[in-house]
Amino acid sequence: MARLRIGLLARLTMPDALSALATAASWLDAHGARPIVEARCAAAAGLGTRWPTADRARLATAVDVVIAFGGDGSLLDAASAVAHSGADVPLLGVNLGHLGFLTEVGRDELEPTLDAVVSGRTRVEPRLMLRGRVERNGSIAAEHLALNDVVLTRGALSRMIEIDARVGEHLVCHVKADGLIVATATGSTAYNLSAGGPIVHPSIDAVVLTPIAPHTLTYRPIVLPADSDITLQPDIEPGLSDIVVTFDGQFGVPLTQGDRVIVDRAPRELRLLRTSSRSHFDMLREKLKWGHG
Amino acid sequence: MARLRIGLLARLTMPDALSALATAASWLDAHGARPIVEARCAAAAGLGTRWPTADRARLATAVDVVIAFGGDGSLLDAASAVAHSGADVPLLGVNLGHLGFLTEVGRDELEPTLDAVVSGRTRVEPRLMLRGRVERNGSIAAEHLALNDVVLTRGALSRMIEIDARVGEHLVCHVKADGLIVATATGSTAYNLSAGGPIVHPSIDAVVLTPIAPHTLTYRPIVLPADSDITLQPDIEPGLSDIVVTFDGQFGVPLTQGDRVIVDRAPRELRLLRTSSRSHFDMLREKLKWGHG
Amino acid sequence: MARLRIGLLARLTMPDALSALATAASWLDAHGARPIVEARCAAAAGLGTRWPTADRARLATAVDVVIAFGGDGSLLDAASAVAHSGADVPLLGVNLGHLGFLTEVGRDELEPTLDAVVSGRTRVEPRLMLRGRVERNGSIAAEHLALNDVVLTRGALSRMIEIDARVGEHLVCHVKADGLIVATATGSTAYNLSAGGPIVHPSIDAVVLTPIAPHTLTYRPIVLPADSDITLQPDIEPGLSDIVVTFDGQFGVPLTQGDRVIVDRAPRELRLLRTSSRSHFDMLREKLKWGHG
Amino acid sequence: MARLRIGLLARLTMPDALSALATAASWLDAHGARPIVEARCAAAAGLGTRWPTADRARLATAVDVVIAFGGDGSLLDAASAVAHSGADVPLLGVNLGHLGFLTEVGRDELEPTLDAVVSGRTRVEPRLMLRGRVERNGSIAAEHLALNDVVLTRGALSRMIEIDARVGEHLVCHVKADGLIVATATGSTAYNLSAGGPIVHPSIDAVVLTPIAPHTLTYRPIVLPADSDITLQPDIEPGLSDIVVTFDGQFGVPLTQGDRVIVDRAPRELRLLRTSSRSHFDMLREKLKWGHG
Repeated sequence: MARLRIGLLARLTMPDALSALATAASWLDAHGARPIVEARCAAAAGLGTRWPTADRARLATAVDVVIAFGGDGSLLDAASAVAHSGADVPLLGVNLGHLGFLTEVGRDELEPTLDAVVSGRTRVEPRLMLRGRVERNGSIAAEHLALNDVVLTRGALSRMIEIDARVGEHLVCHVKADGLIVATATGSTAYNLSAGGPIVHPSIDAVVLTPIAPHTLTYRPIVLPADSDITLQPDIEPGLSDIVVTFDGQFGVPLTQGDRVIVDRAPRELRLLRTSSRSHFDMLREKLKWGHG
Repeated sequence: MARLRIGLLARLTMPDALSALATAASWLDAHGARPIVEARCAAAAGLGTRWPTADRARLATAVDVVIAFGGDGSLLDAASAVAHSGADVPLLGVNLGHLGFLTEVGRDELEPTLDAVVSGRTRVEPRLMLRGRVERNGSIAAEHLALNDVVLTRGALSRMIEIDARVGEHLVCHVKADGLIVATATGSTAYNLSAGGPIVHPSIDAVVLTPIAPHTLTYRPIVLPADSDITLQPDIEPGLSDIVVTFDGQFGVPLTQGDRVIVDRAPRELRLLRTSSRSHFDMLREKLKWGHG
Repeated sequence: MARLRIGLLARLTMPDALSALATAASWLDAHGARPIVEARCAAAAGLGTRWPTADRARLATAVDVVIAFGGDGSLLDAASAVAHSGADVPLLGVNLGHLGFLTEVGRDELEPTLDAVVSGRTRVEPRLMLRGRVERNGSIAAEHLALNDVVLTRGALSRMIEIDARVGEHLVCHVKADGLIVATATGSTAYNLSAGGPIVHPSIDAVVLTPIAPHTLTYRPIVLPADSDITLQPDIEPGLSDIVVTFDGQFGVPLTQGDRVIVDRAPRELRLLRTSSRSHFDMLREKLKWGHG
Repeated sequence: MARLRIGLLARLTMPDALSALATAASWLDAHGARPIVEARCAAAAGLGTRWPTADRARLATAVDVVIAFGGDGSLLDAASAVAHSGADVPLLGVNLGHLGFLTEVGRDELEPTLDAVVSGRTRVEPRLMLRGRVERNGSIAAEHLALNDVVLTRGALSRMIEIDARVGEHLVCHVKADGLIVATATGSTAYNLSAGGPIVHPSIDAVVLTPIAPHTLTYRPIVLPADSDITLQPDIEPGLSDIVVTFDGQFGVPLTQGDRVIVDRAPRELRLLRTSSRSHFDMLREKLKWGHG
């Protein structure tokens, strides 16, 4: 039987993450799996050519599983790499800081978790991803995928932006706000929550449209079917407005007059690998401190 | 071909509703349909035995369509009558006051609407209904259906209540609040909205769990799959607490120590009859004034 | 020099509070002060006639300082007793459960705190109290004082109430909601916070008017001058509405058709005794977990 | 008796505002007052040298009253000009668009309003202004005045900022958010309201500290005494963070690592001139639609 190929990535600026990656590579090698390390991580971790490497864009296509070391941000970044590569491999996050909603495995659970991966005692949770495209002068000027959210937001010097939001042919609203978030259920506990949006259970096939600091006080978050084609058209005055669309808060594209941002379901879901028996509610209670206190 | 049988109900205390009901009965009779009037409405409207009558509990089982005259409250009441009768007939609401989310037809559109009903130019929107059961000493002490929401709420003299909320076997939270709302997508624009909950598009198969004035500031509305079995167990101190479960704000059952309220999907959906071409977003924009203002 | 007379009260249903009261009485007696125990507490604590007693209504008029043992609720109750007695003595709270906003001294700090009281190393923070009067048929049917809030609230079976709120001669709003809170700065961190109201620093001479689950989505909490004469007039339909005014969540008066509730500044401020050097911000950070987390 | 000197300013890009300014100048000249027009407005309105002009920085020092034509933004801009000039003249706003909180006089009320100004049938409402200073390397790098708010806010590409907020020597909180607003009572109905802050009656001597989309869900707006010395110190990572302080949303200063923003009471209040008998509550009801609907 072929050895399980496991791709390893880490946040480059986080020494603990690089060190955990190296530990994991050794453990996997010693336990019958085949580690393949993202090339810049291998260099940053001082691993030389001890294990095979692959660059970020191709890593996911060369392995059976990807493991990302860092925090929720590192997992979002890895999810983007996996999704853009077109591969369909599952992704696991190991957290080196505070436990996150996406990275529930801590450093102290690393070896039992690797053992679960190698022996197949894991389960896969499919998670909706969004595709966001910037339409400019009739063609697509930019396209990115997001696991958490696609956000239109103003620059620091333009107080408020105006956006027409449409679902298919239907005008939803004309919103004046600091910005507008299109979040997945996965992203509902991230920026969406800060902006006053609801938590959405990941088994619901839906997205949330949440305004940031809306000027219209009756505007409220709306939960929409995941199959919605959402078009966001901001009013941009050249030289005055400064509007950006960001993907998972990691990547941004400045918008110009006439641009429209189209958000719909990405071609593939992310396959989130989980080893813990904790329910989504356990995580919510723990992270949001919904105890008896 | 058999004449279409149309059941007519109105808010008894609203003269305009009774008068519109009488007008509709005449119009339907003159246009090839067969009106059947709810018995107390027939008496209150002074219609005598001009048209056949049926009592509230049986009306829906004797007709092909039900039309309710009044406001959103009257439609909720009619929906409860239809649902409890076990009939599967569609329901249309005619509004005699401010247009509601459920009753989008106004008095001035009455005749074209009746014409659309008689000639079949309508469409049916299925809407999730909730079933709420009060479990007491191992048996079901009360059971009701709701189109908008099932709500646990404190009496005026007990400031805060504590509720354990579970989904299936999983503890969701222990919430201290004025109360807790389980709302359908239909009910998301009703009490849920006042309590800070999100709007949920009716095509999403989900319910919202929204606390009322929660003491735990990190508690937020959660959108859950409609198939969730939700169990709400309040802490009740005999003589001190005064907790009630209400169904669509129309019917209430006082709870006693040890009671649990179980909320799940009702056996049948309500078939809401619509004649207008307005989208759900049009209604939201109009009712919530999401204009360019 | 006369011995300092110190009145002691405790929550009757809380054994730890009664026990701490007895400990305090012994300590004070041994250290040159003169404990006077509220009569029912003396009985409940099994103190017999070991120290002089006074009934609740007269205790504050017979002492130089009052100390309440229990939680924030016990302090509110003691504040009401002090205020209604017309005495001007300072009040200190000792907490036997979770530290509260009003009772920042814990059981383990009891003796140093008593020492600070006896030796005068304390400071007094004046806190605004509200007076709420129920006007019925042209006369005052009830009058109570409150340190935290005066609240109009619906009973469990009436979903929403409508209230005209006036300041002096000016109509502020016609609010449809579950209720309406008039909170002091002291009470701003209590029920007001759950209902979405702001925190108000106690050195500001203001009250907050906060709706509970308002139906009008544009309604927001308003901070008003403490000298405002606020009149709340609910719409009450006999037999249908069930509306109560509560004072500090401890005492309630059911309202009837035509009643008006007038809220203004009480004749005297409460003199809250503090021994700790913690600032109001320290308490907010600790209680609301505004840390670096 | 000397003729009343009236300074006139308008939004340069708003033809209706320039036209109303010209009408007002003629009317005032014909009715015994002496119009003095801001120099660029005179040019933009094509008034030539028909009336004396003064540049923006000196206009307020040369007149007895200033009138600004435009919207709330124009009045904020004029308030800044008046305040920075050190003059103590009252300011009136005439609105050419939607009525604002600060500019309650519409175009159709122009002549009666000018008549009221000339004949002294006006009243002055003093309004707190804030002073915001940027402290950099031990000296003041920038200083501006604001009538509504001083806001720290992130640029479009940095999702969240972290700010230590202090009042005097006391740490209030470490907030992670999109930004932080320090608003006056006047500004409480502007950006503060969009961010979830309370309305503060202008007769209260207070400021509000309101986070924008806070990551810490327990963080809430706080109302502080107007005499508070507020220090905001953002964490800025060179090259990564993009943080700006804005004054009334009209003027911005980019911050760099180590900068602190100090906000306190400006040396002078703005004297807002009012001619209408409407109360603050009338304006709130009208603007926020707090009616019986």
